[in-house]
Amino acid sequence: METLERRKLLLGPNLSTAYSCPVKIVRGSMQYLYDEVGTEYLDAYNNVAHVGHCHPRVVAAAQKQIGILNTNTRYLHDLILDFAEKLTATLPDPLSVCYFVNSGSEANELALRLARAHTNAIDLVVLDHAYHGNTTTMIDISPYKHDGPGGKGAPPWLHKVPLPDLYRGMYRDEDPDAAAKYAQHVIDAVRQLDGRLCGFICESLPSVGGQIVLPNGYLNRVYKAVREAGGVCIADEVQTGYGRIGTHFWGFEKYDVQPDVVVMGKPIGNGHPIGAVVTTPSIAASFDNGMEFFSTFGGNTVSGAVGLTVLDVVQEEKLQGHALDTGEQLIGDLHGLMNRHEIIGDVRGSGLFIGVELVTDRRTREPATSFADAVVNRMRDEHILFGTDGPFHNVLKIRPPMPFDSNNAERLVTTLDRVLSTFRVT
Amino acid sequence: METLERRKLLLGPNLSTAYSCPVKIVRGSMQYLYDEVGTEYLDAYNNVAHVGHCHPRVVAAAQKQIGILNTNTRYLHDLILDFAEKLTATLPDPLSVCYFVNSGSEANELALRLARAHTNAIDLVVLDHAYHGNTTTMIDISPYKHDGPGGKGAPPWLHKVPLPDLYRGMYRDEDPDAAAKYAQHVIDAVRQLDGRLCGFICESLPSVGGQIVLPNGYLNRVYKAVREAGGVCIADEVQTGYGRIGTHFWGFEKYDVQPDVVVMGKPIGNGHPIGAVVTTPSIAASFDNGMEFFSTFGGNTVSGAVGLTVLDVVQEEKLQGHALDTGEQLIGDLHGLMNRHEIIGDVRGSGLFIGVELVTDRRTREPATSFADAVVNRMRDEHILFGTDGPFHNVLKIRPPMPFDSNNAERLVTTLDRVLSTFRVT
Repeated sequence: METLERRKLLLGPNLSTAYSCPVKIVRGSMQYLYDEVGTEYLDAYNNVAHVGHCHPRVVAAAQKQIGILNTNTRYLHDLILDFAEKLTATLPDPLSVCYFVNSGSEANELALRLARAHTNAIDLVVLDHAYHGNTTTMIDISPYKHDGPGGKGAPPWLHKVPLPDLYRGMYRDEDPDAAAKYAQHVIDAVRQLDGRLCGFICESLPSVGGQIVLPNGYLNRVYKAVREAGGVCIADEVQTGYGRIGTHFWGFEKYDVQPDVVVMGKPIGNGHPIGAVVTTPSIAASFDNGMEFFSTFGGNTVSGAVGLTVLDVVQEEKLQGHALDTGEQLIGDLHGLMNRHEIIGDVRGSGLFIGVELVTDRRTREPATSFADAVVNRMRDEHILFGTDGPFHNVLKIRPPMPFDSNNAERLVTTLDRVLSTFRVT
Repeated sequence: METLERRKLLLGPNLSTAYSCPVKIVRGSMQYLYDEVGTEYLDAYNNVAHVGHCHPRVVAAAQKQIGILNTNTRYLHDLILDFAEKLTATLPDPLSVCYFVNSGSEANELALRLARAHTNAIDLVVLDHAYHGNTTTMIDISPYKHDGPGGKGAPPWLHKVPLPDLYRGMYRDEDPDAAAKYAQHVIDAVRQLDGRLCGFICESLPSVGGQIVLPNGYLNRVYKAVREAGGVCIADEVQTGYGRIGTHFWGFEKYDVQPDVVVMGKPIGNGHPIGAVVTTPSIAASFDNGMEFFSTFGGNTVSGAVGLTVLDVVQEEKLQGHALDTGEQLIGDLHGLMNRHEIIGDVRGSGLFIGVELVTDRRTREPATSFADAVVNRMRDEHILFGTDGPFHNVLKIRPPMPFDSNNAERLVTTLDRVLSTFRVT
């Protein structure tokens, strides 16, 4: 394929394509993508296009502002303030001070700087298998990267605690004290870090960790211990914010906790490069220590227009409620498939943030890694796009653009049923 | 001012505005910006709007692609490859492998990762007063930040060498061996880092350092020594690439050297958040060590369309030649002002990358810091925008959008002459 050959010459070799037979996508519309010959794909994977690929209102807002002004926050402008006002209104007090950057990596970078400035400490506690970004320090705090291929392990200031995964982790669903036991690892870690702890970071629903819903009672205990040890609680909402989980607008709300720093990325720009961090006036004041924070593109006028419109659309189209309804149907029907397919070990998630864990043996929970990869590629041939994740890459990751609807869910389940059946007879 | 009050509530307090009386800009067109009441400002400062604010071709390309598809590099697409092909064609072989990210900070982050992966070493040599970005590691390598207010100094793996500033540095214009003497600091530094050196980074014309043109013969000696010590040579072209310096398309070409890694930011997206790194196949192969490099937004289809069009415009409108002509006139006329204004200690630059250093005493070269600040604010009142830079904030920084023309240059000089004269009599 000519495009693939050019790509091999021109782009870094460690940038992989999705699917064993890569797709060349040339057009997008809401929950659908189209290739060169007009084939329609049902997108069950791209959470970045949160309100839908090329959502007409977002397109119009971006097109308009691009033609008027695209410049930085050294000048005053209303759009970024309108966006900041609308964004902070979705968050509990005192989360009211915004910083705008250009990606989730930059937002997590800044969150760590805020925590360190506020505590005058360096050490951080992080969940195993977590991913928080692609810069040097974000790889340092991402076990998924630094413990993976090509990684060089964790720096001495990083402290890893077990991923509270009730299906595959060290304490499981049959243990009623699992949440407390997982939390105890954090409590033990932070107690040893007296005066050195800057904070704790976790995705509210860990995504590359395997589309995990944290056990009830975990984060309350963790946040309490972290704060008692002087640390800052950071919620990475890059994958989970903006209503995706259906039950709540933000992931952390699911657990009835309140972070000190909230990190946002992917969905908030619907594809436009925007990241954001919201924190408290107290932490913002600590960060205002004489060193300026400025991002050339962060919070520019186009980002303001896009960010504001995406949030408008999420709210006005009631996408959170839609995600809850569609997600309940989808998760229910995927659960139903477990009766017909031994390979499905677990179905979990919330709203349109869903994981389907494939195992070769339900008792041992042996990961069906190569099988999962084959399923994803076979689904791609059926023109439904999703991927795998989790430490063993055996979790089908389903997180479609939010307009994904009931019919799409039915088609996904029917097709997956057929694909899994085909595999069974071969 | 209502906007300013809202901003104080909603945005981080360490994000400053330009000018003592901030400007509220609502529209931009080429080298002009407009405030709420329609006042036109001549923009002599915003190098990000490289081909001009809201350049119609860039606007059209962005508007078109935003309506068609905005998605990531996991799928194949031609636009990012067309951009990569056109971009690498401006660079000497073997600089042919591209990575796309979302800002100059992210690009410098990646450049450092490339150097470290290629050398399996950590230590870096950097120029004093340099600025390379706002993330934790970029602050580590930016003396401008870590030695400035709120900074905590350099990490042990960073080695700072003197900024080769012939006007204010430790070796000056009267010393014919200044270039060699400055280079010797790097040679000495890298010799002590045997086996530990990952590389050397500098802006091809240091910008926050004070709009410095490196002395002839400096970079050749430095690159040679760095390579002999096993290090990678990184050229930060975020401020200087894309024809701005007039004499050459890239800053490093001015010194007849060839870097191993080229870092790009600000101008390449004309305001759209794009950063890029180009390196050799050999370094790219070292980086391909099993760890994937992926940026959610980096190199997306809209960034591809914008990047490609900006480069088209730079070349087709012959902006490099235009910058050379306009810059020669402007630098010449600013030199002319030195006869009338003792306060001007030095005028330097190349093309439309210009610094005017203000001093209270030409003999001692005492920085006229508060005077420079007053000049910038007075010029803003005259509706001409630029800023200050340099370790003492006494260098007028002039780096307009590239369409800035001969008449604009004349107006800038005439106005500056009048402003400086006014100050003299008060």
